[in-house]
Amino acid sequence: MQTVKEIAQRAKAVQSTVALLSEKQKNRALQSIADTLRSHKSKITQANAEDIRAGQKAGLRASLLDRLLLTDERVEAMACAVEDVIRLPDPVGRVLSGETMKDGMKLLNIRVPLGVCGIIYEARPNVTVDAASLCLKAGNVSVLKGGKEAIRSNTLCMDLMRSAIEKAGVPADAMQLIKDTSRDAAVALMHCKDDLDVLIPRGGAGLIASVVENAKVPVIETGTGNNHLYVDAGADLELAESILINAKTQRPSVCNAVETLLIHASEAETFLPVVQAAMESRGVTLRVCEKCAAMLTKAVEQATESDWETEYIDLILAVRIVKDMTEALHHIRRYGSGHSEAIVTNDYTRAARFQQEVDAAAVYVNCSTRFTDGGEFGLGAEIGISTQKLHVRGPMGLSALTSNKYLISGNGQIRK
Amino acid sequence: MQTVKEIAQRAKAVQSTVALLSEKQKNRALQSIADTLRSHKSKITQANAEDIRAGQKAGLRASLLDRLLLTDERVEAMACAVEDVIRLPDPVGRVLSGETMKDGMKLLNIRVPLGVCGIIYEARPNVTVDAASLCLKAGNVSVLKGGKEAIRSNTLCMDLMRSAIEKAGVPADAMQLIKDTSRDAAVALMHCKDDLDVLIPRGGAGLIASVVENAKVPVIETGTGNNHLYVDAGADLELAESILINAKTQRPSVCNAVETLLIHASEAETFLPVVQAAMESRGVTLRVCEKCAAMLTKAVEQATESDWETEYIDLILAVRIVKDMTEALHHIRRYGSGHSEAIVTNDYTRAARFQQEVDAAAVYVNCSTRFTDGGEFGLGAEIGISTQKLHVRGPMGLSALTSNKYLISGNGQIRK
Repeated sequence: MQTVKEIAQRAKAVQSTVALLSEKQKNRALQSIADTLRSHKSKITQANAEDIRAGQKAGLRASLLDRLLLTDERVEAMACAVEDVIRLPDPVGRVLSGETMKDGMKLLNIRVPLGVCGIIYEARPNVTVDAASLCLKAGNVSVLKGGKEAIRSNTLCMDLMRSAIEKAGVPADAMQLIKDTSRDAAVALMHCKDDLDVLIPRGGAGLIASVVENAKVPVIETGTGNNHLYVDAGADLELAESILINAKTQRPSVCNAVETLLIHASEAETFLPVVQAAMESRGVTLRVCEKCAAMLTKAVEQATESDWETEYIDLILAVRIVKDMTEALHHIRRYGSGHSEAIVTNDYTRAARFQQEVDAAAVYVNCSTRFTDGGEFGLGAEIGISTQKLHVRGPMGLSALTSNKYLISGNGQIRK
Repeated sequence: MQTVKEIAQRAKAVQSTVALLSEKQKNRALQSIADTLRSHKSKITQANAEDIRAGQKAGLRASLLDRLLLTDERVEAMACAVEDVIRLPDPVGRVLSGETMKDGMKLLNIRVPLGVCGIIYEARPNVTVDAASLCLKAGNVSVLKGGKEAIRSNTLCMDLMRSAIEKAGVPADAMQLIKDTSRDAAVALMHCKDDLDVLIPRGGAGLIASVVENAKVPVIETGTGNNHLYVDAGADLELAESILINAKTQRPSVCNAVETLLIHASEAETFLPVVQAAMESRGVTLRVCEKCAAMLTKAVEQATESDWETEYIDLILAVRIVKDMTEALHHIRRYGSGHSEAIVTNDYTRAARFQQEVDAAAVYVNCSTRFTDGGEFGLGAEIGISTQKLHVRGPMGLSALTSNKYLISGNGQIRK
C-alpha cells in the first residue's frame, strides 16, 4: 500500500498538468465519470452491500447505515450530480480585476486553481464522487480520505473514476483515495504541508476539531451548525411556529437545522405550549431551561450547560427563555458556531440589529435556517459550508476551490 | 504582567464593539493616533534610543539597527502613514453580491471585519503603528507581538495609541501589545484558537516557518520571496540588464527583490560577463552554477544546492544556466516561494506560457519584480504580501482583513 506521503507527492506531481486543462477536457473527463458510474451500477451496489453488511455487524446506527447505503437510484443521482458539475461555468482564468499601472504596465488578477485539495469525510460514499468532481472542475487535484465504513464503496468508485478520467486524457492521479482508513493515515495527511494546499474536513464536530488541532496545512472548517432561532417580543407566532417546525424537523440531521430555540420572556407563556405540542407531535424531545420548565404543565427534560453547546443533528430541541434581545445575542455569541442564525420579529430596528450584530455565515430574518446551502444561494453544487472567516464563509461553491494570481506585462519598466 | 491568553480574551471581548464602529468613529480614532505620534516625537525617539543602545550592546547588525531606528522624520512618516489609512475607503458593510431568491427572500453578501487579528513581527517599530491602524480601519481588534529589540519603542507607541483611540471613544483594548517578548509568549499566541480569527506573521523565513508549524489558529503566510528572473533565448539583453539591476539592487533587503538569475544557454556567453560587471560594480556577490563558472574568465564563488533555496535579502545573486524554458520552469517550481517571478523575453508564446505555468502571486513579463507591493498594485497600504493561496494571495490590502456574511430577509419562507 502506498503511504499517505507518496499519495500526496503523486498528487503534487500532476498538479500543474491538471491546473492547465481546458474546460472542454475537464468536462469530457467528468462525463466519462458519469457514464462509468451508470454502467457499473450493479458492481457499485454490490461493493456497497458488503460495506452495509460489515456496518450491520459492527452495530452502526440506522441513520449512519442510511447515509452509507447506495441503491441504483442513488448511484444514478451521483452520476447526475457529476453532470450538474459539468454545467457549472469553469472558474479558472476568469479576470477578477485589472488595470493599467503607472508607466503603462498591464496588471491582471485572474482566478487559478488552489492546487492539491485534501478532503477528509465520513461514511457517505457520494462525497467521494462529488468532491473529486468539484475539485477537478476547478483544476485541482484531490486526495480523499473517507470513513472506514465506506471503504469498499469508496475504493470501487475511485478506481472507476480514475480509469474514466484517464480514458478522457486526464492523469489518473488527479484523483486519489487514501485506502488506509486508520487515524494515523488521517494525521499523516494533515501533515503533508509540502504537497497539500488546503485540507477540508467534512463531517462531525469531532473530526473537524481533530483536523484543526493537528493540521500543519491550511484548513477550511466546515459544517458545525449549532444554530439558534430567536422569537422576539411581538413576533408573529404562527410564522415562528412554521419556521421552527421547518428548521428543526424538515431534515434534522443536517448542519443548517436549528438546535436551540430562544424565546423572548413576553411571548413565552403563549408560545411555549405551542412549541411543545408542535415538537412532541413530530417526535422532537425538548430540553428546556428552568423558567420554561416552570411554565409548562407537562413534564419535560431540563437542559444542562452541555445542551446549549451541543449540535444535536437529531430530533432534540433546546429551549431557553431570554429577558430581551441583548440576552439572546449574548447566548448566540457564547454558544453559536457561526453557521446559521435566525430571528422571527416584526420590529424593523431589531431585525436590522440582529443581522448586524450576529457574527455568523448566514443571518436570517423571518425565514428558515434550512436555506443555508450552495444550491439555494445560487452557487451550484457545494463542497461544504465554511464556518470560518478566512478564505470563504458560508456555502462553498467552485470559486472557493480557487485562488488568484497577478499577471503583470511590461516593456522594461523598473521601480524608481 | 497579563498573560497572552488574558490579552487575547480582552481583545475578543471588544471585538463586536469594534466591528460596529462607523467609518467616522474609526477615522477620528486614527487621526487621534497621528496627532499623538506627532506631539510625542521626542519621547518616542528617546525610547527608541534606548532600544538602539541595547541593540548596539547586543551586537545587532547595522541593517537591523537601521530598521529599528526612529528619527523625527520617521515618526512623522509613521503619522502620515496613519493618515493614508484614514483616506482608504472603509471596506466594512460593502455589498459583495445580492439577489432575490426563490420565494422572494432577499439575499445580500456583505463585507464584515475578520475579528481579532494577531500579528507577529520583528524589530520594525513602524509595523506596530501600521498594523494596528489597518486592523482598526477594517473593524478588527489587533493583538501585536513585535521583536524584543524594539520593545521600548513598541511599548511607548502602543501606550500612546491606546490612549489616543480611547480619547476618540474607541475601547483601548481594540489594540494590544504583548510585552512578553519570549518565544513562549509567541507560541501561546499561536494557540489562542478561541480568541483569534487569524494570525499573520511578518518577517523572515524562520519566523514564518515557526508560526506555520505551531499555530492552531488560521495563518496567512507572508513575505518569503525566493524570486527568479529568467532571461529567455532571444531576449533584449539591455532590457534584461536594467531589470536585473533594479530587481536585485534597488532595495535588496525586501521580499520582492530577485535572488536567482536563470539564463537560457544560448544567451549565457554574451550575457554572463554583462551580469558579472553590472553586479560586481554594485557590490553584489555572485554564486554561480558549474556551467557559468566555466564560462566566466574572472573567478567567482560556486553555488551549492542551498543557494537555490535561499532568500538572501542581501547583495548576493545566484546564477544558473538552463538549457530551455522548461528547465527554468522546473527550477522555479522546485525552489520558488510563490512570491514574484519574472521572465525577460521577446517571444509572444513563451511570455504567455510563463505567466500561465508559473504558480506564484505575481508573474512578470519584461518588468521588475520590485512592483509586487500594495501601493503599486493600487491597494493602498498593505499589511503584508501573502505567499499562500487561501484567502488572499499577493499584496494584502484592507479587504484582506475582512470576511463576509450572508443576510437573508424573508416573510415566513420555509424550505420545501
